[in-house]
Amino acid sequence: MSDSKLEGYRGFVFEILKKAKASIGDHLGIKKDGNAYEGILLPRSEYSDDKHLLIKIKSGYNIGVNVDSSTIINVVKGGSKPKFVFSPPKKMKEKLEKVAIISTGGTIASRVDYRTGAVEPALSANDLYAAVPELSDIASIDTKILYSELSENITPDHWSEMAKSVVEMIEGGAKGVVLCHGTDTMTYTSAALSFALQNLPVPLVLVGSQRSSDRPSSDATSNLVGAVSIAKDAPFSEVVVAMHDTISDGTIVVHRGTRVRKCHTSRRDAFQTINAPIFAKLNLDDNKFEINEEKYLERDKKRKTQLKPDFDEKVALIKFHPGMNSGIIDWIAKNDYSGMIIEGTGLGHVGHNVHDSIKRAIESGLLVGMTSQCIWGQVNMNVYYTGRDLLALGVLPLENILSETAMVKMMWAFGQTQDSDEVKAIMMKNLAWEFSKRILWM
Amino acid sequence: MSDSKLEGYRGFVFEILKKAKASIGDHLGIKKDGNAYEGILLPRSEYSDDKHLLIKIKSGYNIGVNVDSSTIINVVKGGSKPKFVFSPPKKMKEKLEKVAIISTGGTIASRVDYRTGAVEPALSANDLYAAVPELSDIASIDTKILYSELSENITPDHWSEMAKSVVEMIEGGAKGVVLCHGTDTMTYTSAALSFALQNLPVPLVLVGSQRSSDRPSSDATSNLVGAVSIAKDAPFSEVVVAMHDTISDGTIVVHRGTRVRKCHTSRRDAFQTINAPIFAKLNLDDNKFEINEEKYLERDKKRKTQLKPDFDEKVALIKFHPGMNSGIIDWIAKNDYSGMIIEGTGLGHVGHNVHDSIKRAIESGLLVGMTSQCIWGQVNMNVYYTGRDLLALGVLPLENILSETAMVKMMWAFGQTQDSDEVKAIMMKNLAWEFSKRILWM
Repeated sequence: MSDSKLEGYRGFVFEILKKAKASIGDHLGIKKDGNAYEGILLPRSEYSDDKHLLIKIKSGYNIGVNVDSSTIINVVKGGSKPKFVFSPPKKMKEKLEKVAIISTGGTIASRVDYRTGAVEPALSANDLYAAVPELSDIASIDTKILYSELSENITPDHWSEMAKSVVEMIEGGAKGVVLCHGTDTMTYTSAALSFALQNLPVPLVLVGSQRSSDRPSSDATSNLVGAVSIAKDAPFSEVVVAMHDTISDGTIVVHRGTRVRKCHTSRRDAFQTINAPIFAKLNLDDNKFEINEEKYLERDKKRKTQLKPDFDEKVALIKFHPGMNSGIIDWIAKNDYSGMIIEGTGLGHVGHNVHDSIKRAIESGLLVGMTSQCIWGQVNMNVYYTGRDLLALGVLPLENILSETAMVKMMWAFGQTQDSDEVKAIMMKNLAWEFSKRILWM
Repeated sequence: MSDSKLEGYRGFVFEILKKAKASIGDHLGIKKDGNAYEGILLPRSEYSDDKHLLIKIKSGYNIGVNVDSSTIINVVKGGSKPKFVFSPPKKMKEKLEKVAIISTGGTIASRVDYRTGAVEPALSANDLYAAVPELSDIASIDTKILYSELSENITPDHWSEMAKSVVEMIEGGAKGVVLCHGTDTMTYTSAALSFALQNLPVPLVLVGSQRSSDRPSSDATSNLVGAVSIAKDAPFSEVVVAMHDTISDGTIVVHRGTRVRKCHTSRRDAFQTINAPIFAKLNLDDNKFEINEEKYLERDKKRKTQLKPDFDEKVALIKFHPGMNSGIIDWIAKNDYSGMIIEGTGLGHVGHNVHDSIKRAIESGLLVGMTSQCIWGQVNMNVYYTGRDLLALGVLPLENILSETAMVKMMWAFGQTQDSDEVKAIMMKNLAWEFSKRILWM
């Protein structure tokens, strides 16, 4: 039914491709119902149907074409060689440097189950490697399957295990580590690992995909190729998130792990660096880096990672809104929480109806930090009396740190010490670029 | 100490201006310490010091210049006539159409108290009118002081009162209504009034300012001039928010009340329309509107407003995050709440650790709606098993409605009926453009 030249194809579509003498990686011209398509033939997954073929078109999108008896398929001779031809894995070159890929699940490690329509985080790092054979041209790949979780199920305990795995891989000689992760909570994890893994000798690159790898228009392949290149070649040695720049292939954007936010539910360029310039970009055509920050931690393979993997889950993240019931804050104060981040309005405000609850919470020992639900900009609690009242109660004004990063950092800080004053000092110290330069009022 | 030509100036700066024969509204050239400044002389507030004069420079910013004995001031003859010369109020023209301004507080109605440094929401609508006398060229202004609150203190009860006041003003013959509001929670209020005031005969324009009106670089004047023009002249008859387009004067952006979010803590162009085109723009130079939506409710002064001012405060807004304690959801379910909006991750997900609590909450009668913390894009709970599991529990997938609007709408819906099925139906119906066209996966 199938052969290696037409991997994953079967039935009717296999026969028509065979008749056209097409192979995976060939440049095809397709005519159907008066429409013309051109692109590189891609392999299908083992769950594929027998009606569609998959091509990568010039823009970088993968599209499926429904084939019927009227479809004309030509193998285009002299078609330009595409960037990411899928081809059978080459034999590993012995001299290539080692990059570790740790798989935790998520869409980048997913496939669509065509029986049920579900997207399942089913691919191991090995499967990914097999699906993106050009990785073997870049590096010698070590893979580790840590989890197969959709990222909404990732917890602080997972962060701890991930941090330990990264150190293992580095101690095993990896010149860089790639961590495949679901995109939903990837930025919470990138912040967590930025605090848990200090003084890294090599980069840790979190990577995800907004579309499963066998879905038309998947970004999985180029994101993964980019992430492995960054892990191996980037001059910086930090925890970063690597994702698409625009909605087509070509450039991978590198975000600092503490300053990035998922700002769209589905677009491939959903990830944005907030309140800072984009840290770096990798041009996939020439493998060149453009770095936009003057200061960063440089690679130094002799440096020893400081592993601080402990988190205290008892930190809440609360968004203030009109009509908010102050009882929620009382409940948190009474339930053994260590701290709370409030996403206030504007410059860091909450209504006076919850001030008493905040006062009682702080008096009972809860640490309370303030960020802004605006996302962009920074809290400034000296402008209005509301802000000054809250400062007087002991609320910590957390500058322009992202709410999510603030919560993760407080969980980490209470994992290091239960002394509230020490945690306060940790919160106000810039440990992993989580604060950026004060942005002047414009 | 002061006269009407140099309103608000006193002491040293008054003398030097008098000597230069300058009046409010004159185009000045100023030389000091080797620097040159050019702009329109603005009046100072009653709390001003005797060292600074205030000019509006070409970019639209107001800047203060510290005057000393070395300062040279020339009244520039033939300087171009500025857009917003402050001049003493002209006598009201009898034939001008009526626009109502309702003041609720906030920065647009604030002044800096130079004794304490505090910004206080102290100006009434009358004060505002006096501070922006060019309003009298646009319309006959009716003013009403409803509140003097910083907007973080605005509650659903305030929304009800505002809705009633708007109807009063319309019944009093206003050709449009402007509501001055603090920016922190202005978009919650604009959403609330979009549901509470249906079938408006004339526009309701919410307006605020990111800087107090006597602060250098205030946007208060042009925002207010723009809002009054929109209330009087716009062809649409909806609840909108009018704020700056860019960081300089010139264009006022009109956002639909249900689709707008404050996305920066301090910039003048902080407000953004989410998941839809910007509704309209007003060019202040020629008073022309550019409208980007084909469908809108047109003005019709014979139409009668449907006033539905009731809200039920017992709706919570919860943001899911890794390490979230499901006990918060249990607490909400046990405390007589009517409903809850969850800001899930990505396409509308939460970790499996809180699924049981959501199940129990729904079984106990709580209505649970899902939005996305990504902000942009829309929930789609059919892609991953997490989403499908939540749908099976009875969670409402709220398309691309903003989280804040979703919460406000649910408060409003429970204000109309306590029947959960009716509220569900209301939530899924597009009442005030709160849903926009489905954005295709890219």
